[in-house]
Amino acid sequence: MKFCLNIPTRLVFGAGELKNIHTLELPGKRALVVISAGTSMRSHGYLDTLLAGLKQAGVEAAVFDRVQPNPIREHVMEGTALCLSRQCDFVIGLGGGSSIDTAKAIAITAAMGGDFWDYVQGGTGGGKPVTRALPVVAIPTTAGTGTEVDLWGVVTNEATQEKMGFGTPLIFPHTAIVDPELMLTVPSKLTAYQGFDAFFHAAEGYISQAHTPISDLYALEAIRLLYKYLPVAVADGNNMWARIKVAWASSLAGMVESTSCCTGEHALEHAMSAFYPKLPHGAGLIAISAAYFRTFKNDVMKRYMKMAEKMRQVKSARPSDFLDALEVMKRSCGVDNVKLSDWGITMADFDRFADNAIATGGAMLDLDPRFLNREELINIYMESYK
Amino acid sequence: MKFCLNIPTRLVFGAGELKNIHTLELPGKRALVVISAGTSMRSHGYLDTLLAGLKQAGVEAAVFDRVQPNPIREHVMEGTALCLSRQCDFVIGLGGGSSIDTAKAIAITAAMGGDFWDYVQGGTGGGKPVTRALPVVAIPTTAGTGTEVDLWGVVTNEATQEKMGFGTPLIFPHTAIVDPELMLTVPSKLTAYQGFDAFFHAAEGYISQAHTPISDLYALEAIRLLYKYLPVAVADGNNMWARIKVAWASSLAGMVESTSCCTGEHALEHAMSAFYPKLPHGAGLIAISAAYFRTFKNDVMKRYMKMAEKMRQVKSARPSDFLDALEVMKRSCGVDNVKLSDWGITMADFDRFADNAIATGGAMLDLDPRFLNREELINIYMESYK
Repeated sequence: MKFCLNIPTRLVFGAGELKNIHTLELPGKRALVVISAGTSMRSHGYLDTLLAGLKQAGVEAAVFDRVQPNPIREHVMEGTALCLSRQCDFVIGLGGGSSIDTAKAIAITAAMGGDFWDYVQGGTGGGKPVTRALPVVAIPTTAGTGTEVDLWGVVTNEATQEKMGFGTPLIFPHTAIVDPELMLTVPSKLTAYQGFDAFFHAAEGYISQAHTPISDLYALEAIRLLYKYLPVAVADGNNMWARIKVAWASSLAGMVESTSCCTGEHALEHAMSAFYPKLPHGAGLIAISAAYFRTFKNDVMKRYMKMAEKMRQVKSARPSDFLDALEVMKRSCGVDNVKLSDWGITMADFDRFADNAIATGGAMLDLDPRFLNREELINIYMESYK
Repeated sequence: MKFCLNIPTRLVFGAGELKNIHTLELPGKRALVVISAGTSMRSHGYLDTLLAGLKQAGVEAAVFDRVQPNPIREHVMEGTALCLSRQCDFVIGLGGGSSIDTAKAIAITAAMGGDFWDYVQGGTGGGKPVTRALPVVAIPTTAGTGTEVDLWGVVTNEATQEKMGFGTPLIFPHTAIVDPELMLTVPSKLTAYQGFDAFFHAAEGYISQAHTPISDLYALEAIRLLYKYLPVAVADGNNMWARIKVAWASSLAGMVESTSCCTGEHALEHAMSAFYPKLPHGAGLIAISAAYFRTFKNDVMKRYMKMAEKMRQVKSARPSDFLDALEVMKRSCGVDNVKLSDWGITMADFDRFADNAIATGGAMLDLDPRFLNREELINIYMESYK
C-alpha cells in the first residue's frame, strides 16, 4: 500500500458558479479562451457569461473557436499562434473535453515553443520533456471526460492517424469550474455517451493495476452515482439534481484518472476514433465494453463484485453481476444497441485498430488486470462487432 | 450542492517512504527541521534518517528541537529566530501534530515578520492577514492530527491561556510523507488517543454544517477504517497492516478538515487543554464525546445512522446506533474510562472552559448541527465529568 495523491487543482463546484468567476483568484491577466467550432457556446450564452465575468475581473480575453470533437494537432498549433500573438498568460478551455484538452495542449506549446507533437510521448511523438506550461482554467460543459481535474489530454494527429494521450502535472488545471447548469443543454444521446465515458474512467481505474486506496474511493462513488443518476439525466435533461450528481461523478472519475489510470478499453477506443473521428468516444467505449470487461471477469473477481454492489446496492456473489448490471445500465440509458457498423467500421479494420492500440496505448494496456496479446485485443473487437 | 475542493499537498504514502525523501522534489535548499523536545525522534533514528535523506538530496538542515506536546507561541518565536538566522527557505515538521503545527506557525512568522500572535484570528490574536509563508514539508510520526494534509494549526498562548487554531491555504504542506513505519513505536495509550482524534475529525466534519460531498466520502471511509483497525493497532502496535490503515484513515480525516470543518467538540476540548496543557487532546475529546454527540442525536439523524452503518457494517434504524458503536469502539481501545479528574480538572473549571471555548472556538461552534448556548456547553462538560 504505497501511493501518491497530488491533485493541486482548485475545484469550484455548483450550479451557477460560472457567473461567479469574477470572485475567484485567476492565474493571469490575459486569457486565451478555447471553444469548439460549433455554435453552442455562443447560442446558449456560456461564452458571453464567461467573457462578462472575465471583464469584471479585469482580465482581457482572446477567443479561439476552431476546436472539433476529436481535437487535432493542427488546431493546437493555430491556437498557440493566437495565444502567442495576443501575449496571453493563461488558457481557459470552455466546453467538452476537446476544448479543454486543446487548451492544455496550447498551454504546453505556447510555453515551450516548437510543435505540440514534439512533446507527445510514444507513437511518432517527439518525446521532449515538458518543463513549463501556461496555467489552465477548465470549464466543462459536459459530464464525462474529467479532464478538468486530471493531468491528461488527448489530441489526434491526422497526418499519422494517431489519437494520443499526453500528460504532465503542469497541466493540472489551476482552477476547474464545474457548473452543472451548463450541462442542461446537452442532448440525451450525448449525455449517455459522455456519462459512460466517466463510468469507464471509474471502472477501468478500479480494476487497473495502478489502483490506489484513494482512487478506489473516488471510483466506487462515481460508479454508484452514475448507475443511479445517469439514466435520470438521459431521460430528463432538465432534471437539475441528476445533472448535478452526474457532473460530480464525472469529476470524481477524473480524479480516478489522476490517482489510478485508464486501461486497455480506452486504448482500444482511441484506436477506433483515430481512424473514424466521427465515432463519439463514449459510443466507442460502450460498444466494446461488454467484451472488454468479460475478458477480466476471473482476474479481479472481488473488484467486479464490489462494483456490482455499489451499482445494485445488494450483496454480490458472482463477478458476472457487474457485467449484468452494466447491461442494465446501458438499457436504461438507451445505449444497449450501439453498433460500430453505424460509423462505417468493418471487421477488416480490426488488424489496424489492434496495431494502433499497441503503438499508441502502451501504458494503458500495461495496466490491464492481465496483459492481453494482439490476438486477444482483436477478439475484443470481434466480439463487439455488430 | 456547492463546494470547493482544493488540497494542493502532494501526499506520499507508504511504509518506508521517509527513506526515499531524496527522490522527491523538495521546495528549497535549506531546511529548518522542527522536532519535539522529547528524545524519540533521535532514539528511534527518525531524525537521522531524515537528515541523511536531506544530505543525499543536497539540502542543508538546521534542527529546532524545543517543541512540547501542546505547542506554544514562545517556541514558535524561538524557531522563527533560528529559521531566519540560518536563512532557511523551507520548514520540515517531523513528529506529532505539535511539531508540524509549530513548523506551520514558523513558516508564517519567518515569511511575514513580527510576532506569530499578530497573525492569529480571534481571541487576543492580532488578526493581520497572512500573504506569504515558507513552504512546509510534513512528516507525521503519529496517526491523528491530519495536519499533514490540512491548512490548520493549533498553538497555545500561555500568557493569555488561549489554545487557538490558525489557518491559511498558504500552510497546506507542499509535501506530506506519511510513513506508517514511523508509527510502530507509538505506545498503546497514545495510539488510542491519537486515533480517536482522527475519528472525531471525521465524525465532526460529517455532522458539521460545512460538510460537502467530498468531505462525506473521506469522513465515512475514515470512520469505517478506524472502527475496524484502531483497536487492532492499540492491541498490537507492531501490526503493520493496522498501522497502515490507521495512518491512511488519519490522513483521510485530515482531508475532511480541509473540505468540511471540525465542530464544537474540538472547541470544547481546546478550552480544556488551554488550562490543562498536560491533558492529551485525544483524551479530552474522548472524555466529552458521549455527551457531545448525544446532544445532536435528533438533529442529524440520518448522518448518525450512516456513520453507525459504516462502523458496524449493518443497516441502522436509530441514530443512537452511532452512540452505541462509539462506546463499543472506546471499550475495544481501552479508553472507555477516561476521567477528566485524572488531569486535575474540577467542576469549578466549567465556567471558564465555556467562556474560553466561546471566545476562541467561534467558527467551530457556529458549524455545529445546531447552535449551542453557553448553558448547553457547560452541560456537556457536566455530563462528561467523572
